[in-house]
Amino acid sequence: MTGFARARVEKIIRNAGAKRVSADAIDRLNEILTNYGMNLAKYAVEIARHSGRKTVKESDIKLASTK
Amino acid sequence: MTGFARARVEKIIRNAGAKRVSADAIDRLNEILTNYGMNLAKYAVEIARHSGRKTVKESDIKLASTK
Repeated sequence: MTGFARARVEKIIRNAGAKRVSADAIDRLNEILTNYGMNLAKYAVEIARHSGRKTVKESDIKLASTK
Repeated sequence: MTGFARARVEKIIRNAGAKRVSADAIDRLNEILTNYGMNLAKYAVEIARHSGRKTVKESDIKLASTK
């Protein structure tokens, strides 16, 4: 699953200094970032529930990212 | 710096099971993913250069992600 617009992912790779980028490199980074974001978000949801909240807050994301 | 559309980031958090999400939680995850993507992409660019290429390929992204 890829969750982000290809143009945004390509921009990140170009900002990182790439002169040229293959299409499948963009797709691969998109997939990696989507999976990473999903795993982090799942953990943040668990943290929010554990705290008795239905709302995922910034502090949940922050804590999840330190895992 | 946040590199992705807020709606995409929010969707990931909702797909992860969140009923409600605060605005700053979305911004924080966006920032984390942008920074993670930028660091990974910078390493992929180094790998491509090291291999004598100007084009960043899928294999460069893949190798960078195993760092």
